[in-house]
Amino acid sequence: MADKVFRVNMTDLSTSIEDVPADWAGHGGRGLTSTIVAAEVPPTCHPLGPNNKLVIAPGLLSGTAAANSGRISCGAKSPLTGTIKEANAGGSSAQRLAKIGCKALIIEGQPEDNSWYSLLLTPEGVTINKEEELIGKGNFAVVDAVEKRFSDKIGVISIGQGGEMQMCAANISIKDPDSHIRSCGRGGLGAVMGSKKVKFIAVDAGDAKVEIADMDAFRAANKVFAKALIDNPISQALGTYGTNVLVNIINEAGGLPTKNFTAGQFEGHEQISGETMHDLIVERGGKPRHACHTGCVIQCSQIYNDLKGNYLTSGFEYESIWAMGADCTIDNLDKIAEMDNIMDDIGIDSIETAVAFGVAMEGGVLDFGDADEMIRIMKEEIAMGTPLGRVIGNGAGNVGRTYGVTRVPVVKNQGIPAYDPRAIKGIGVTYATSTQGADHTMGYTIATEILGVGGSADPLSKEGQVELSRNLQIATAAIDSTGMCLFIAFAALDDGTCLPALIDMINARFGINLTADDVTNLGMSILKTEHAFNVAAGFTNLDDRLPEFFELEPIPPHNTVWDFTGEEIDTFWNF
Amino acid sequence: MADKVFRVNMTDLSTSIEDVPADWAGHGGRGLTSTIVAAEVPPTCHPLGPNNKLVIAPGLLSGTAAANSGRISCGAKSPLTGTIKEANAGGSSAQRLAKIGCKALIIEGQPEDNSWYSLLLTPEGVTINKEEELIGKGNFAVVDAVEKRFSDKIGVISIGQGGEMQMCAANISIKDPDSHIRSCGRGGLGAVMGSKKVKFIAVDAGDAKVEIADMDAFRAANKVFAKALIDNPISQALGTYGTNVLVNIINEAGGLPTKNFTAGQFEGHEQISGETMHDLIVERGGKPRHACHTGCVIQCSQIYNDLKGNYLTSGFEYESIWAMGADCTIDNLDKIAEMDNIMDDIGIDSIETAVAFGVAMEGGVLDFGDADEMIRIMKEEIAMGTPLGRVIGNGAGNVGRTYGVTRVPVVKNQGIPAYDPRAIKGIGVTYATSTQGADHTMGYTIATEILGVGGSADPLSKEGQVELSRNLQIATAAIDSTGMCLFIAFAALDDGTCLPALIDMINARFGINLTADDVTNLGMSILKTEHAFNVAAGFTNLDDRLPEFFELEPIPPHNTVWDFTGEEIDTFWNF
Repeated sequence: MADKVFRVNMTDLSTSIEDVPADWAGHGGRGLTSTIVAAEVPPTCHPLGPNNKLVIAPGLLSGTAAANSGRISCGAKSPLTGTIKEANAGGSSAQRLAKIGCKALIIEGQPEDNSWYSLLLTPEGVTINKEEELIGKGNFAVVDAVEKRFSDKIGVISIGQGGEMQMCAANISIKDPDSHIRSCGRGGLGAVMGSKKVKFIAVDAGDAKVEIADMDAFRAANKVFAKALIDNPISQALGTYGTNVLVNIINEAGGLPTKNFTAGQFEGHEQISGETMHDLIVERGGKPRHACHTGCVIQCSQIYNDLKGNYLTSGFEYESIWAMGADCTIDNLDKIAEMDNIMDDIGIDSIETAVAFGVAMEGGVLDFGDADEMIRIMKEEIAMGTPLGRVIGNGAGNVGRTYGVTRVPVVKNQGIPAYDPRAIKGIGVTYATSTQGADHTMGYTIATEILGVGGSADPLSKEGQVELSRNLQIATAAIDSTGMCLFIAFAALDDGTCLPALIDMINARFGINLTADDVTNLGMSILKTEHAFNVAAGFTNLDDRLPEFFELEPIPPHNTVWDFTGEEIDTFWNF
Repeated sequence: MADKVFRVNMTDLSTSIEDVPADWAGHGGRGLTSTIVAAEVPPTCHPLGPNNKLVIAPGLLSGTAAANSGRISCGAKSPLTGTIKEANAGGSSAQRLAKIGCKALIIEGQPEDNSWYSLLLTPEGVTINKEEELIGKGNFAVVDAVEKRFSDKIGVISIGQGGEMQMCAANISIKDPDSHIRSCGRGGLGAVMGSKKVKFIAVDAGDAKVEIADMDAFRAANKVFAKALIDNPISQALGTYGTNVLVNIINEAGGLPTKNFTAGQFEGHEQISGETMHDLIVERGGKPRHACHTGCVIQCSQIYNDLKGNYLTSGFEYESIWAMGADCTIDNLDKIAEMDNIMDDIGIDSIETAVAFGVAMEGGVLDFGDADEMIRIMKEEIAMGTPLGRVIGNGAGNVGRTYGVTRVPVVKNQGIPAYDPRAIKGIGVTYATSTQGADHTMGYTIATEILGVGGSADPLSKEGQVELSRNLQIATAAIDSTGMCLFIAFAALDDGTCLPALIDMINARFGINLTADDVTNLGMSILKTEHAFNVAAGFTNLDDRLPEFFELEPIPPHNTVWDFTGEEIDTFWNF
């Protein structure tokens, strides 16, 4: 199918299929969602009002046989941060969108009544249907029902109760090949989908296929690319232990934020570590390796079963486990897995929500370490939309404001994830300067500071950290546009064959001649587009700062504070 | 007594009495609180953290016999708006502070344990005492107990449960001459006092007196000044009907925001009007005229009794009555008075809280018009600090974020008061540009647009409104520094003898030679000091905007929208 823009107006329930404007043609994934949001969304609009738009786009290589190319990007003005936002995930919808020729789906407007709708996307276009049955239901019920209505081959993009209630921690949830859930987690984009009154989007690709301009060149490049990924030692560790291999590593580095960011090491780290998790998975007949999308050769996901050997959760990530574990001082992996599953069903970000719980514990709402109360609050308060449920479901900043807590780990109102910036300073630069609030994936300096990939940097020193974060943020913006999983970066940074092969695949797909410089320029231009949107929305360099408590409170064991000056941080944008 | 700065450090519980720096000597009231906050508070600090400071100052003429000079100013970085903030009120503490020679009280730091304290100010200085008995108690119990501990002559500055829980709607409450409560209401300064762990401040002036440099000149000027106030027809209307005379006037103008700002006229306006209120007060043996501080000749306050003739509330203002009445569609003045009294006791701003209720009604938390449920929520949720109580007690913006509501009438996160900016456009300029978030008192264009004082302006036209708001904001900043009630402005704008007499009094008090130009320059310099603080805190011209819904939704009966461009608004700062 030739690529088109699919547009849906939820105010008058009209749809259209449009040619791709020339400016957008070279973009995919995050590059495209950010370009469209910047072009069409008034920066000062209310994120949940009629003037915001939700843009969903596959990457440049989505729908092809390229290894690890199954990421789908969602973009909008974020109700959590007020900035431009993109969040991506695996699953089985990116490929289907690409195959039906949907370069981007733009959902705009807002119904004036209280009706709910679903969208069905096929090669022929978009159908809007009223939805009643699934309103108030979680993602698991939605996926079940949609598969029954259509077939289990269908792609499903949905929101749970969190998105319906327009909570700022709400995910957009993506069905994976096993009919489980992957999450476009950060920034509350599920609330934007909820504000459009779209409960789910079904993608039926039928037999449609992506066209490849030069199939031989594509196959040859993919072979080199996949080998680079498979041979990489970090890829291999991710396949064995998942991302949760990091618990022990970051704890050892003294940068595992514990008890709402009051310490850098967690006594219970062994009980929640990747090694422990691996053994439990094997012992209980789960899968330590699992692909979140077809074509993934790293397979950092897993199937985690309960004591009785029944499915408990999958896609069980380090950052989620850290947030519920060390940050809320819970050392029981089964409880954490149960919560992970509940949050998948409600459709709320497991980082934002758990960081919010940490702040709520600080505020006296519940005790640190009380997993059962967390589970009760998730089920009985967040999913039901009680006042407490809405306070927590709107994120860490909201809890802090509501309970008068001053130790609130957020940047641009988004919860800070699993790496303490006082002990691992480069990641703090990423948190501060990211166009999208605190987000480790925007420029994952941990790779270099802690894992020694792509050079080295002393995590306790400020030296070189701004440059490191800048280079990684530029590279990430480009990778996020390809539809590739970010974990190709480990191979790309360490294996000289990887990145050229990726560029060869893009060239073979579209019959073009991108160079490595073009890719770097693409990354820079995406960052600048996003930054310009934020400036027009009212953000200044003073928003590129960490919360005051990081400067005031030394964190053990290193007893270091966050000591970057504003001037140092501001040099980030010198490019 | 010679004027001194009284300083209290709550981290180490130390106190000091300091000479007044030369830069501060010419300031009082708001001019002084803003000067000190700008000089000593890091603009980007957390408002509830140790680096914020609470500054309390009497005005330049406080403690003298000058008519209407009993206002006390509180200032800090606001936890509600994040801007610099000053809020002032009547009562009996401004005079006492002036008499003991306290030009400003600065409370800084924060105890590291959870202990609560009280302060006793005398001519000798400050004593810090542990406080246990009154923690968790409302303002009424505090005033009772403090009078019993000392005497009924003592000045009391206190917080209720709202301030203890650091809610962003928390007042600083000031005992009035009848031992009732006046409120420094806006901006959540009570939360700052709570964050310092100071439950109350008692001011024992003994026989101390303010020194007057030229008593004869002072007395002569005061005579002229008081006569100008007494002769003014608006002063007289305020004495008869209170500020609530405005319900019918603003309703007639189509600018009475109704049902969370969805209409400009309220069907039940007669039931809650100043005229109805006056008759009820007389019928029930209350007082239609009442002075909130010694020396007030306007007496817009009143004692409002219940059906049985028992005291229900006092200082029953138009904006509070509008907020609970039209905005929440409650047409029962007794219920509104009961709520007013409850909010005085809890110590929460009756504007912010009631606007927050309007948003909560829009969000489905309770029904519009349900006064009994509002009363229940105030008593059982806000005062008790339940999740819902904290959501509402943190203001309209917090309710909007927590419930995903898009029609949230706030500027810089502070609730918009009783005049719809689509139907009365000048006041919208004040809301947008005020250094302190939406606040009608910052530049009360209603005087000119609706009451025809100081010229005239068409409320439905943009013409001249920026200049009008600017001139009034400059004058207001100056008046707020004198310790004078803002209601002197009606006489000052219309009677040529009033302002010169006020300046003569200041000159006679201090033995100086201020001119009218000096006063204007003082107002301009205060605004610029405040604005500079906000810019350093991260605010830009894009924060000087009304919420999007005012541009999108025409308001009946005029069916007009807010149509100022950003460029037009930004000309405000051209001075």
